[in-house]
Amino acid sequence: MPELPNEALIEDTFSSQGITQTRVMELFAPPEPLQLESGKTLGPIQVAYETYGTLSPRRDNAIFICHALTGDAHVAGRHASDDRKPGWWDGFIGPGKGIDTDRYFVICANVLGGCMGTTGPSSIDPDTGKQFGPSFPFLTIADIVGVHKKLVETFGIKKLLAVVGGSLGGMQVLEWAVRYPESLKSAVVLASGAKLNAQGIAFNAVGRRAIYTDPAFRDGNYYDETEKPRFGLALARMIAHITYLSEQSIELKFGRRLQNSADLTYDLRKETEFQIESYLHYQGKRFVERFDANSYLVLTRAMDYFSIETTHGPLSQALGKTDARYLVVSYDTDWLFPTSQSKQLVHALLEAKRHVTFAELPSPHGHDAFLIDSELPKLKDLIVPFLANTYDA
Amino acid sequence: MPELPNEALIEDTFSSQGITQTRVMELFAPPEPLQLESGKTLGPIQVAYETYGTLSPRRDNAIFICHALTGDAHVAGRHASDDRKPGWWDGFIGPGKGIDTDRYFVICANVLGGCMGTTGPSSIDPDTGKQFGPSFPFLTIADIVGVHKKLVETFGIKKLLAVVGGSLGGMQVLEWAVRYPESLKSAVVLASGAKLNAQGIAFNAVGRRAIYTDPAFRDGNYYDETEKPRFGLALARMIAHITYLSEQSIELKFGRRLQNSADLTYDLRKETEFQIESYLHYQGKRFVERFDANSYLVLTRAMDYFSIETTHGPLSQALGKTDARYLVVSYDTDWLFPTSQSKQLVHALLEAKRHVTFAELPSPHGHDAFLIDSELPKLKDLIVPFLANTYDA
Repeated sequence: MPELPNEALIEDTFSSQGITQTRVMELFAPPEPLQLESGKTLGPIQVAYETYGTLSPRRDNAIFICHALTGDAHVAGRHASDDRKPGWWDGFIGPGKGIDTDRYFVICANVLGGCMGTTGPSSIDPDTGKQFGPSFPFLTIADIVGVHKKLVETFGIKKLLAVVGGSLGGMQVLEWAVRYPESLKSAVVLASGAKLNAQGIAFNAVGRRAIYTDPAFRDGNYYDETEKPRFGLALARMIAHITYLSEQSIELKFGRRLQNSADLTYDLRKETEFQIESYLHYQGKRFVERFDANSYLVLTRAMDYFSIETTHGPLSQALGKTDARYLVVSYDTDWLFPTSQSKQLVHALLEAKRHVTFAELPSPHGHDAFLIDSELPKLKDLIVPFLANTYDA
Repeated sequence: MPELPNEALIEDTFSSQGITQTRVMELFAPPEPLQLESGKTLGPIQVAYETYGTLSPRRDNAIFICHALTGDAHVAGRHASDDRKPGWWDGFIGPGKGIDTDRYFVICANVLGGCMGTTGPSSIDPDTGKQFGPSFPFLTIADIVGVHKKLVETFGIKKLLAVVGGSLGGMQVLEWAVRYPESLKSAVVLASGAKLNAQGIAFNAVGRRAIYTDPAFRDGNYYDETEKPRFGLALARMIAHITYLSEQSIELKFGRRLQNSADLTYDLRKETEFQIESYLHYQGKRFVERFDANSYLVLTRAMDYFSIETTHGPLSQALGKTDARYLVVSYDTDWLFPTSQSKQLVHALLEAKRHVTFAELPSPHGHDAFLIDSELPKLKDLIVPFLANTYDA
């Protein structure tokens, strides 16, 4: 088992300047590889993570953040003072923020199968000395959580104050609560649910199809090629991106406004005539620069497979075996994980006589609302007392 | 101008056996080509159409049906008695049905730019003797309607009893009402709106992107190639198909049920593990067999461009110049053309002091509801008195 991180080092990771740093830890080295839900094993596993705030002497103030599909460990602060953008949830995590790093110790790690520092398809397979590519094993949410659980143990933390996550992160939170009930005091599930619904599977399926049918994908063996499956991956992102927004937010932000021309061009070859088109193309292009197609396949499939009922039996029964206090939040314009999904979860928790707080927050921003700065005050109003009450409980 | 069709022939087209037949008429032959909204011209134009019922001696009982994006002229009956399936709206059009062919004379024609008999990108360009391909001109809804208007004139019909259509068909209905107000007594707009919203443009954009980035597309010059852009076109259809359904209907019909295996396979290469995936793949595959990629590009772009306000000025002002009685119907689970879009139209009609009947029908079937047999009785209850009152008015 790796050495406990030096506490002085941990304290240093969230300075007043908000300079943070991604560290990498090796876990599951042979002869103790990770047992995957598929039956296979994987190890060693590199885990990229960041921490903020200070772990209390009783190690009881730790909060683990589970990131969404294409997130990473860099959740708050900046890696360098001149970084253009801070971590992906910097508006919510920091001194005096929704998750107050003056009070809590925060850990976030990149997911297994990702491409932001934690072992994934683009990592070197120690057995071959080459990148895994399509030989990377099939993953589930349980596998992802298993790695994070082990990471948390290395800090000597027996029980997390909270596990927090939105979307795919919320699935991890639920899997964590059901699989390791003794290891968390509370679970915060945002814009998520106890399973991916069929419509969600459908959107993931067409996104993957775009990658599979890109000739440059070459069955996943593209790492040594000059041409990468950028068209397929960009297309997958464009499709998914629409589902992260709401009809209202797209209408408000773009409407039918044209991108460059004052007038309609009547030119079929002009693919970005409307602003919304230009925006989607830009999102696709940017995504390809930072994400790996094989990771996208692995992680969306893990998402499809997620169903507490399939893995752990009837929902209220499965949740009845958990100890955590729950905070469940949905957004009224989220149609990828509609409020009905959160309500289904809440009903099962109530049936199982669990402690649960539920709110449907109003927002024009659809599924992405939990990531949008202007929406964070409402979420802060919910989570601050929830965490404080849990901490004092 | 072509000769008027023989009335005896018209009477024959909807026999008690329901055998119908698609006819083709040539219109806009030089020197009088169609003036397109883009400024270009096109002609001659072949128009594929079908008729049902009998035109009254006063020629006042004619109803024109505008089909949706991938529909055709074959709206009712069978072409042969052993046809497996009847026309696409056979449940709604026929003797004693929602649009009663014992009383009304029904015309439906394939849209300009399509690939079901009316001139489109896959037709032979008389100037070159080869298929148009990417040289086919840019089309708008106005151009499509212009062709149908001309077709109707050849029957000696001065004023249609009604123009009826859903989705892209509803856009045609509105364009018809605004552009040729003297030519119709009523307009029936189903699951549509006065413009395509930005989310709709977004979905069309990613569908087209799938076609454009398919190497077999070859900038639209694929007709002489063995390989057609079938992956891109299938993908476009899969994306669009999700938007035609509702979260509820997908959940009800497929849920998380597996296609073949009793258990999850944990195999990333298995693209059709869930039933919903298999269904979408099937839809994509079937679509490629019957539809042309260039037509898909032309028609979805015409749909994107559709906005009564952009073309005709402020909505209530534009609609104020129309004479028709309106029936506007939305479906509560339609998220591609949500009820809000229909309401926007209805409010503008009321502001313009037009005669309008509006209903939001309950249905689990989303956008496609107006095409689904089990949903047709509700629509029939609305349209039968609406048409009868209009006819008697």
